Amino acid sequence: MPSKTTLLVCLVVATLIVHSQPQAPTKVKKDRIELQFALDKGGTPWYSVFFNDKEAIRNSSLGFSLDSDSLFYKNFTLVSQERRSIDETWQPVWGEVSIIRNSYEELVIHLRHNSGKLLDIDFRVYSDGVGFRYKFPKQRGLRYFIIKDEFTQFRLTGDHKTFWIPGDFDTNEYSYTTSKISEVDARPVVIAATDIAVRTVRDSFSVQTPLMMKSADGLYINIHEAALLDYPAMQLHVDRTNFILSSNLVPDAYNNKAYLRAPARTPWRTIIVSDKATDILASRMILNLNDPSVIQNPSWIKPMKFAGVWWEMQTGKSTWNYSDFPDSTDDKGQLIPNERHGANTANVKRYIDFAAKNHIGGVLVEGWNVGWEDWFGNWKENVFDFVTPYPDFDVKAITDYAKAKGVKMIMHNETSGSATNYERQMDTAFRFMKKFGYPAVKTGYVGRIIPRGEHHDGQWMVSHYERVLKKGVQYQIMVDVHEPTRPTGLQRTYPNFMACEAARGNEYHAFSNGNNPDHETILPFTRLMGGPMDFTPGIFKLKGYVTYAPQRSVHSTLTKQLALYVTLYSPLQMVADLPENYAAKPDAFQFIKDVPVDWDDTRILEAEPGDYVTIARKEKGRDNWFLGAITDENARTSVVKLDFLTKGKSYRATIYADADGADWKSNPEAYTIRKITVDSTSRLELRLAPGGGTAVSFIAIE
Amino acid sequence: MPSKTTLLVCLVVATLIVHSQPQAPTKVKKDRIELQFALDKGGTPWYSVFFNDKEAIRNSSLGFSLDSDSLFYKNFTLVSQERRSIDETWQPVWGEVSIIRNSYEELVIHLRHNSGKLLDIDFRVYSDGVGFRYKFPKQRGLRYFIIKDEFTQFRLTGDHKTFWIPGDFDTNEYSYTTSKISEVDARPVVIAATDIAVRTVRDSFSVQTPLMMKSADGLYINIHEAALLDYPAMQLHVDRTNFILSSNLVPDAYNNKAYLRAPARTPWRTIIVSDKATDILASRMILNLNDPSVIQNPSWIKPMKFAGVWWEMQTGKSTWNYSDFPDSTDDKGQLIPNERHGANTANVKRYIDFAAKNHIGGVLVEGWNVGWEDWFGNWKENVFDFVTPYPDFDVKAITDYAKAKGVKMIMHNETSGSATNYERQMDTAFRFMKKFGYPAVKTGYVGRIIPRGEHHDGQWMVSHYERVLKKGVQYQIMVDVHEPTRPTGLQRTYPNFMACEAARGNEYHAFSNGNNPDHETILPFTRLMGGPMDFTPGIFKLKGYVTYAPQRSVHSTLTKQLALYVTLYSPLQMVADLPENYAAKPDAFQFIKDVPVDWDDTRILEAEPGDYVTIARKEKGRDNWFLGAITDENARTSVVKLDFLTKGKSYRATIYADADGADWKSNPEAYTIRKITVDSTSRLELRLAPGGGTAVSFIAIE
Repeated sequence: MPSKTTLLVCLVVATLIVHSQPQAPTKVKKDRIELQFALDKGGTPWYSVFFNDKEAIRNSSLGFSLDSDSLFYKNFTLVSQERRSIDETWQPVWGEVSIIRNSYEELVIHLRHNSGKLLDIDFRVYSDGVGFRYKFPKQRGLRYFIIKDEFTQFRLTGDHKTFWIPGDFDTNEYSYTTSKISEVDARPVVIAATDIAVRTVRDSFSVQTPLMMKSADGLYINIHEAALLDYPAMQLHVDRTNFILSSNLVPDAYNNKAYLRAPARTPWRTIIVSDKATDILASRMILNLNDPSVIQNPSWIKPMKFAGVWWEMQTGKSTWNYSDFPDSTDDKGQLIPNERHGANTANVKRYIDFAAKNHIGGVLVEGWNVGWEDWFGNWKENVFDFVTPYPDFDVKAITDYAKAKGVKMIMHNETSGSATNYERQMDTAFRFMKKFGYPAVKTGYVGRIIPRGEHHDGQWMVSHYERVLKKGVQYQIMVDVHEPTRPTGLQRTYPNFMACEAARGNEYHAFSNGNNPDHETILPFTRLMGGPMDFTPGIFKLKGYVTYAPQRSVHSTLTKQLALYVTLYSPLQMVADLPENYAAKPDAFQFIKDVPVDWDDTRILEAEPGDYVTIARKEKGRDNWFLGAITDENARTSVVKLDFLTKGKSYRATIYADADGADWKSNPEAYTIRKITVDSTSRLELRLAPGGGTAVSFIAIE
Repeated sequence: MPSKTTLLVCLVVATLIVHSQPQAPTKVKKDRIELQFALDKGGTPWYSVFFNDKEAIRNSSLGFSLDSDSLFYKNFTLVSQERRSIDETWQPVWGEVSIIRNSYEELVIHLRHNSGKLLDIDFRVYSDGVGFRYKFPKQRGLRYFIIKDEFTQFRLTGDHKTFWIPGDFDTNEYSYTTSKISEVDARPVVIAATDIAVRTVRDSFSVQTPLMMKSADGLYINIHEAALLDYPAMQLHVDRTNFILSSNLVPDAYNNKAYLRAPARTPWRTIIVSDKATDILASRMILNLNDPSVIQNPSWIKPMKFAGVWWEMQTGKSTWNYSDFPDSTDDKGQLIPNERHGANTANVKRYIDFAAKNHIGGVLVEGWNVGWEDWFGNWKENVFDFVTPYPDFDVKAITDYAKAKGVKMIMHNETSGSATNYERQMDTAFRFMKKFGYPAVKTGYVGRIIPRGEHHDGQWMVSHYERVLKKGVQYQIMVDVHEPTRPTGLQRTYPNFMACEAARGNEYHAFSNGNNPDHETILPFTRLMGGPMDFTPGIFKLKGYVTYAPQRSVHSTLTKQLALYVTLYSPLQMVADLPENYAAKPDAFQFIKDVPVDWDDTRILEAEPGDYVTIARKEKGRDNWFLGAITDENARTSVVKLDFLTKGKSYRATIYADADGADWKSNPEAYTIRKITVDSTSRLELRLAPGGGTAVSFIAIE
């Protein structure tokens, strides 16, 4: 379905010209949220945000340093301001809900700098927060220009509890630290994170967004951005003494931040505020601030679960590389096979069989194309060519086999960080996918970026990711990006942007010491605020799965792995474990077979960042519901009302729960399954083990 | 014709193992040139070069700093050395001569570092100089590595006279300064060169190669490099006190110089030495050090003269841009035309008519594709798309018209320095040329480079230029590159690399205050040592040709403009002036109509850098000769023997000479033409005006 926008109300409320400075603040209110805006005596713009008449963001200044004007943050006068109210709805192509309401009060500020240059600021006040962006109108005296720095402040009202990862230019794959604002210090975290290949942190007191905070008096505040296009990612520098966050844009080789041409606009800076944590997760503000879909007919975009020849490489059972010797060949000039290559035709067919049997839509295969012998960590320009398979990977035969079985193949294009190499060959790569009927691609950016001097989160790479999405639109290919900058709701504009990584996924349980048990309770409040994550849930063998490091364990119980299919939303959701590990537990696997990846409705039943999340979702187009509940390292019991179920209807509930004595550390695979009949008046007690979770399917009884 | 290599002699003379250090130098002699090589006590390799038993390059050290080994310039021991003699000939696809002899003594040095790493140095000793390169063999312990610095020295024997331009990372378009080594200082030159858009000089005492020098005792020494591929350009840092030149490689954003993978090799460092300046120009050493052609069947590569819709833009008669307003459109959404756009169909047809009538092979058209309104100096990623013509440029009609007239169209792809943008679209651009039958492309790199952090002369761009050449091979397109790094003889390996700019061309007489009258007497000894230049000679209207700056003049007489077709060799040679300016002087124009662009033989009759050059060349496949003689700001008279003419044959000589009273400054267009009959016993007196020249055609009388 195309995302259809219905404009219900659109009226310009006021246009007034104010020349005298300073002025009383302009106030815009929407339900419990109020925005105030004014210029101070020096002509610096500032804003503040109130929740229930209580300050949430104190008066915070706005502005820039431009290449042509280092003082583009003061000496402004107000030219005029406009207001309007919008209340519209639209339908996403896929998502957590089938209809999204976009209702806000808009305030557009037109400023003139004493240099003569013009600057606009758009504020949109929602019932759950505020978004604003800068606009550089078309004007004389400002055409091509460089953002040297953006000076956007978010002044906090106190020393909030914060869930943060370091402000790294090249990765979002850190574990979260929970601390007070005054305790933020990225340095020790970065030094300790030896399991992350490329780390680039210049400011120990910068953190990534989405940044989740909680005030001492119980206010939840989330700061992020929306519609990050043609601009670097915004990180936040933390003033630990005065509790001021300020924008820190990811630079290029010249320490420039963005190259723009007027008319231009920045991404939206977003502040979501509520006294209920569940409201944060239910917010659609970031999606709403993105532009409508560019895809006229998105019928080729189909959410799906997928299996993959992948976890077996992560865990050491097989290899991405065909040979153990990078450029050594045998008598016949052929690479010498190591006999452990995962992406061989027979093994891939085994996964296709597995997917077909269990109604899993797709199969991803990594390590299929030549170059994996020395792809990693060499910062080399020419890595892969994206079209040449290893000799034991028969593209045509696999394509035919998958087609006959009704399974879609997912292409894998690892760039190793050499984006220039990928851009040169992208057209050829996408033509190759089209030729062999691959409807989706997983791209990857492991390693230091080429162009050298650029970073994963800088403007050039942000535009690169968009170029890949556009190429996907051109060739009708869905895209799942690994190691990009974190998402900002672009899936509204590019609904073929199905998912990305940009956070610490389940894979860290394979090649490192893993994730904290509270990790998945923080992700929805941070990384997932911007869009779906390819987290790769569903690991069933939770101990002894890494051949070369048998002591490793997944820091989760088995039913928590099930619950993640509901709590961590993605329209491309991996069924990550090996087929044989699912075969050993067919009763638990039933939930993965049943759980959908596209929803009509979503209810955030309970949530507290770092502690627990319980979500119920209604299957797209059917009257079935699925519930996921997870907890951190602490056991948890709660009772949830099932009043989201259709009134008067009975449901067959299958409850996948931690067994007595289950524990993420000592006994992660103990689970129980029980079936009961419920309706909308029922209550369900959830008993979660330490590091545990519960998954429930509610199938309507017709 | 494919360049055919006949190996006459190839024998390994000696392989010896030497473990004790230090050793007596190894000596290799070829005619008057002798190379000496040894390790010093500290295990640093050094070499020296002798000419006629006199030191030309004193013992100069060799080595590197690598990312993994900052001392990769000492602590070496000699493992073994090999010697062999080569004497072979090969035929270039096009060039100054039809057969090239490649005769040298080779010395290969195998070194082991105390770190265990291996390094080879190849020396080739020619009768006119020495070339050497470093090789990093395939080995354990050195695979992917970074050249942090190359420490190659060229220790001079005195304070030589030097013809130099600043060691700029982004341009070679400076005027030459003639000074002693001790007087080299790029800073004031760079500051004064406001007519060059992008200047990047970090070291005031670095100069570009080819560097031409002359010792007090009359030795001519030229230092450059050959086969620059996958490596940055080498500039030379000048130690003004000790007269030591040392390699200064163009860096990337991280100040790294090159990213290599063993086995790897550097370009050849070349030293050409003689006591006669003419020998320097006659040397084929740089070409010989390049690899043989990669093109199996080069029948599609055809040298030609070309006219162009170009000088009229340079001189302000018309514009590249279609509109004067970058993004302003009329009522119908169309760009508002300025009515002065040069690349309009009617005007292009006029040039096609002109070319067809005068047997000029090609027509170049600049400003044909959308984007010229604001292409310059904005450092923007997306500039041109290379396939979308302005509304008044009818690609199809022009193609058809040119085809009917037997004229080849030359494509113009200006990148504005955004190489990433070009690489994304290069395939599309070359397919477009192929579709419309364009056999050649002029590329351009005006502006700061994108990827930002890279430079015109760094490794990434060097590889980019090669990618363009390879794309040309793939699509059978000849390439003429503007604003690249200076050439290094790659036209042997890529015979579709017809010409490039990489120096200050005639165009500076249009948009700046022009070139010194000695400029063209220096170019053959410097820039042209590496390969043909698209200098754009042949300006006939030498005063009052710039509409917006009527005081400007070309610093040359008219017949010097003719002589340049002989003295500045290029297989793509522009007939640069406007058709109407040639129409006004049909008698002088006859020389341009007659002069070929491909030669069987070349004789350097007289030469002194900065003073004069006289060259005679024999037309490819015909018994006609053409002579060009030019001088600097001083008048010059000389008598040349015509003993290059075939003995016993008579020739009709047409002599285009400066008229009495001609002078580059006051009276540049005064010329005389006379015809005489000569033979190989004749002598010809050349009388050159200040800033003047003489051109002569010798047509065999059958």
